[in-house]
Amino acid sequence: MSLITLTTDFGLCDSYVGVMKGVILSIAPTARIVDLCHGIPPQDIVAGALALDQSTSFFPAGTIHVAVVDPGVGSARTTVIIETERATYIGPDNGLFDLVVQRERFKHAVELKYPRYRLPVVSATFHGRDIFAPAAAHRFSGVPMDDFGPAMDYLPKLKLTHPLPHGETLQVHILRVDHFGNIVTDLTPSVLSAWNPDTTPLTFEFLHSNFTGVVSTTYADVPEGAPVAYFGSSGRLEIAIRNGNAAGFFKAARGFSVAVKKW
Amino acid sequence: MSLITLTTDFGLCDSYVGVMKGVILSIAPTARIVDLCHGIPPQDIVAGALALDQSTSFFPAGTIHVAVVDPGVGSARTTVIIETERATYIGPDNGLFDLVVQRERFKHAVELKYPRYRLPVVSATFHGRDIFAPAAAHRFSGVPMDDFGPAMDYLPKLKLTHPLPHGETLQVHILRVDHFGNIVTDLTPSVLSAWNPDTTPLTFEFLHSNFTGVVSTTYADVPEGAPVAYFGSSGRLEIAIRNGNAAGFFKAARGFSVAVKKW
Amino acid sequence: MSLITLTTDFGLCDSYVGVMKGVILSIAPTARIVDLCHGIPPQDIVAGALALDQSTSFFPAGTIHVAVVDPGVGSARTTVIIETERATYIGPDNGLFDLVVQRERFKHAVELKYPRYRLPVVSATFHGRDIFAPAAAHRFSGVPMDDFGPAMDYLPKLKLTHPLPHGETLQVHILRVDHFGNIVTDLTPSVLSAWNPDTTPLTFEFLHSNFTGVVSTTYADVPEGAPVAYFGSSGRLEIAIRNGNAAGFFKAARGFSVAVKKW
Repeated sequence: MSLITLTTDFGLCDSYVGVMKGVILSIAPTARIVDLCHGIPPQDIVAGALALDQSTSFFPAGTIHVAVVDPGVGSARTTVIIETERATYIGPDNGLFDLVVQRERFKHAVELKYPRYRLPVVSATFHGRDIFAPAAAHRFSGVPMDDFGPAMDYLPKLKLTHPLPHGETLQVHILRVDHFGNIVTDLTPSVLSAWNPDTTPLTFEFLHSNFTGVVSTTYADVPEGAPVAYFGSSGRLEIAIRNGNAAGFFKAARGFSVAVKKW
Repeated sequence: MSLITLTTDFGLCDSYVGVMKGVILSIAPTARIVDLCHGIPPQDIVAGALALDQSTSFFPAGTIHVAVVDPGVGSARTTVIIETERATYIGPDNGLFDLVVQRERFKHAVELKYPRYRLPVVSATFHGRDIFAPAAAHRFSGVPMDDFGPAMDYLPKLKLTHPLPHGETLQVHILRVDHFGNIVTDLTPSVLSAWNPDTTPLTFEFLHSNFTGVVSTTYADVPEGAPVAYFGSSGRLEIAIRNGNAAGFFKAARGFSVAVKKW
Repeated sequence: MSLITLTTDFGLCDSYVGVMKGVILSIAPTARIVDLCHGIPPQDIVAGALALDQSTSFFPAGTIHVAVVDPGVGSARTTVIIETERATYIGPDNGLFDLVVQRERFKHAVELKYPRYRLPVVSATFHGRDIFAPAAAHRFSGVPMDDFGPAMDYLPKLKLTHPLPHGETLQVHILRVDHFGNIVTDLTPSVLSAWNPDTTPLTFEFLHSNFTGVVSTTYADVPEGAPVAYFGSSGRLEIAIRNGNAAGFFKAARGFSVAVKKW
């Protein structure tokens, strides 16, 4: 028994996500649908790719993941079904799936091209409803990959920032701020340990303030209200304030830089 | 196998929606429940009616749609079950269902009057839990329509604005702003083509700014950051900024007018 | 057939809740999961306890309720499974379950201690995914209580405010503001009737304004736009503005006091 998950930048204040579920259940009445996340910031492909990357390994093998963060909707951009050794991914071919496909083993991709498994009328503004939801439901129901369109090579194309060393400073970038105000950066454990092999304590400089500390394991390593850097569930360095809101305190947002210095 | 959908103005920050699901599953353990939308602005019956109208045709025939946007809760207002040729609607009789009932063929309506299929204690503030959720679950389980209350004529009563021609200007009204900041107006394709049979380019005047363009098919018809008018998934004229936020840019909100002029 | 519900302070803008569902369905593919509420304010244990208290009795007997409002995550705080006569509760042992356990009959509690029914790798920041979701799925699948850890006494420990009489004034506290701006206080019917046995009309004094009225049954007892006090679905005195936003109007928030005086 497989699942279909949905990840979008649609939010939950409109009926867009509900309608996608109606389309899926009209075609595949026994499908089980799980909302992975609908709070991807509008058109933020990187945030969508990260949400998938830190989530899909916790779902059963064979899960079908539909993701719609699609600034090119209505243009000539390509839409895809990708199969890895572990799961199936359906959505626009804009980099949204690159992190998961690089992590899992790539098997097969086809372009979602043939009209047969779309809704009869395809709008120019809502492909989540008209193309992606029907494709997921038909794939769930056993339609073979190659019936959706021609095979294609799948070439990763996500543009992700990387930490930049500038002299004594490592400039890292904020990829995401979560619901708690925790700040997710683009700094991975391997990049950090190559740059700071002695695990010297670090100073993190934001626009208006900074703090110094070692990389901790969890919030509880520091007192209430104190800032803490740790490798979180994103697999990247995160900065939090224990039981507080780090993004609010440091006036930090997606796209900003943080200067990391050895203390 | 039929579905039960839920549409409310309850938001998702409280447990109100969760409790409705608990009530439904206590009575009908095999029911499948789909959230259609819980972000209807508080007491905005028009927004609720529009959300249903642009969504229910994408659900399987036989679906039971519960909707609760109910400024009159606790007063003597009527509550109903309505059957059309396609689906069943349960909620307050305040116009919420008029657009869908006018579109689908009306069959039968009864007042939700008899206490038997309500919860044993009916509060004066939460009829979603005490009246509508149990009615949906019992109807799902096969209780005949007429066991819920006396038959009633169903008379549409939604007060919806309509575009108003003033000399050379067509004054249209904003019915809804969606999660992306896209603006949904009350202008339908038939009204527009009657008023502008030559498809002259149009100028759209907001309070502080305006733009001129033809009615496009999709966002991708204009450059990034440019405004665009198109008939969207609402079936009404929408105004967006490609990969931007039109409501923010034009300082527009539900209830405001837009002056449309031939260029 | 039993259900698993989820209550967290995770919000819905990240994939945290979706990942918990992936973990549950990987272990217990037939589990039915219902979102009770994910809008508990960050780290607000009282709000979490209240959400459970006003909701769980509307779910079928045997439901497994997982709740994660966990300011101590990563510290040495205890995690528990509690069984009452009616349901099972899984989460941190920080008072989150005290109101429901006091209301239902307590049967048995064990510490979630043994590693066998956790994920293979347990992070220090996301026990919802690594400890609580797997425990719920394994309990759902029939793992006996005592296989999760040693039995423990369950001692209620929620610190809840109580109304304080000061001379002629009863000082009540705001526990929660809901999506509609309705204000939930800590005043119960029994405390109010002991303090005001004659049901004298009351004046409610906020920081900048006040109103006078009897305790009503519902919003519809007052005109549109007027304030109203009533015992709502929380089982506590609530203050609303009919079809308006009381918290916005009275500039009131969680933790503030309201002075109640006999008129």
